[in-house]
Amino acid sequence: METLSVIKIGGNIIDNEASLSSFLKSFASTPGKKILVHGGGKLATKLASQLEIPQQLVDGRRITDADTLKVVTMVYAGYINKNIVARLQSHGCNSIGLCGADGNAIQAHKRNHPNVDYGFVGDIDIINVPLFKNLLSQDISIVMAPITHDKNGQLLNTNADTIAQEIAKGLAAHYDVSLIYSFEKAGVLLDANDNETVIRFLTPGYYSELKDKNLVFAGMLPKLDNAFVALDSGVTKVIIGQADQLEQLIAGNQGTTIINE
Amino acid sequence: METLSVIKIGGNIIDNEASLSSFLKSFASTPGKKILVHGGGKLATKLASQLEIPQQLVDGRRITDADTLKVVTMVYAGYINKNIVARLQSHGCNSIGLCGADGNAIQAHKRNHPNVDYGFVGDIDIINVPLFKNLLSQDISIVMAPITHDKNGQLLNTNADTIAQEIAKGLAAHYDVSLIYSFEKAGVLLDANDNETVIRFLTPGYYSELKDKNLVFAGMLPKLDNAFVALDSGVTKVIIGQADQLEQLIAGNQGTTIINE
Repeated sequence: METLSVIKIGGNIIDNEASLSSFLKSFASTPGKKILVHGGGKLATKLASQLEIPQQLVDGRRITDADTLKVVTMVYAGYINKNIVARLQSHGCNSIGLCGADGNAIQAHKRNHPNVDYGFVGDIDIINVPLFKNLLSQDISIVMAPITHDKNGQLLNTNADTIAQEIAKGLAAHYDVSLIYSFEKAGVLLDANDNETVIRFLTPGYYSELKDKNLVFAGMLPKLDNAFVALDSGVTKVIIGQADQLEQLIAGNQGTTIINE
Repeated sequence: METLSVIKIGGNIIDNEASLSSFLKSFASTPGKKILVHGGGKLATKLASQLEIPQQLVDGRRITDADTLKVVTMVYAGYINKNIVARLQSHGCNSIGLCGADGNAIQAHKRNHPNVDYGFVGDIDIINVPLFKNLLSQDISIVMAPITHDKNGQLLNTNADTIAQEIAKGLAAHYDVSLIYSFEKAGVLLDANDNETVIRFLTPGYYSELKDKNLVFAGMLPKLDNAFVALDSGVTKVIIGQADQLEQLIAGNQGTTIINE
């Protein structure tokens, strides 16, 4: 099977011009089929503040009211997405920027939570596999903004980590998929403040062992649990590491590579 | 040859929720291949004003400085484009929203004017015909935002009328193309204030006659001159008329149909 890299970049990379520039050059020169999923960064928060749209957080999650949805649609699907695509084109990497509504790429439903109304937040129902395959077969890379839709005309703000995971899982039957979470840290760290303590390989057995000994930073647990779910769904490997080491991450020479035994 | 409708909607339609809603329903039910090109409307001006970005006009044209480019990218390629796509999906019309950078759909260069620096305004160089053909062949309608790129990483603000015309011309060798300019008036009018005076058919001979007699509203002259250029480039017909009469416009039962003798 052909290889496919599904690469998520975090907001900290988008906010830092030098990091973004270096990442986009590496992404453009990455061989094989590839999909970039980007988060939002501080731009949406800044624009909401300039427009005096109050931002409400519950348990660290942003509540997406109608005005906030407008802001994130403008910033994520407009400004960030189109600038990334234009810059990839300048590096000779033909790419197309999509949100979930485009070509019905990702259909979702408004989150239905018993206690919290998250507003216009989407939980993913289905990935349009034929659309992704068709674009990739034309050697077009896909740049995905973290906005989906419900097929009833409603756009929905959707977690970019989850989008990357669902795309990787959805395409795992058709490609040899590596799912790469790139951010500002060197990988999964034994000491969150020391990039030298990166765990190079993580198997389910080793992960259980680390969890039993309370050696995994709590904030990483959901990401890692999701990584093993992705592997169980056919994704070949999940790699977590620093955005400016993309080439080495894909080669498995840097970062944390998560694999089933 | 298969038919293709390239339909431009003006800003007045986008600003009016009832007009837009009615138009999108008609667009969704229009048979054959179709491309929607949308302008901006008042939203970009409003956002620029909220963000205190001064807007400079020269001869009625907006100067696009870096901040204004950011605003129009957010509003045109983000908010308007993605909402139109989501709403078309809700009507069962599979569509994909693009700007010129996406898939290198439309390459342009920054306008080089001897006297006026228009800023980040693009004049079109080339339409990516294979990309448009591929998407249309999958029965995906294309929703085009009036933003292009220069292939060197720079997005450019570009006139939506011109985009519609260049797409129509570029695809004329492959489809039987109707180019439709839909706006709030009933067509080309002998009396600009009276929708009853619509000219139903306009040929080059009749157009010369009307021009000689000063019977064409000056503001319409560039649009009509462009329409005849499009016809000379292989576009089958150009239709100008009211957005809420889309079906009748395409059928040639309403509006002004411009044809070569």
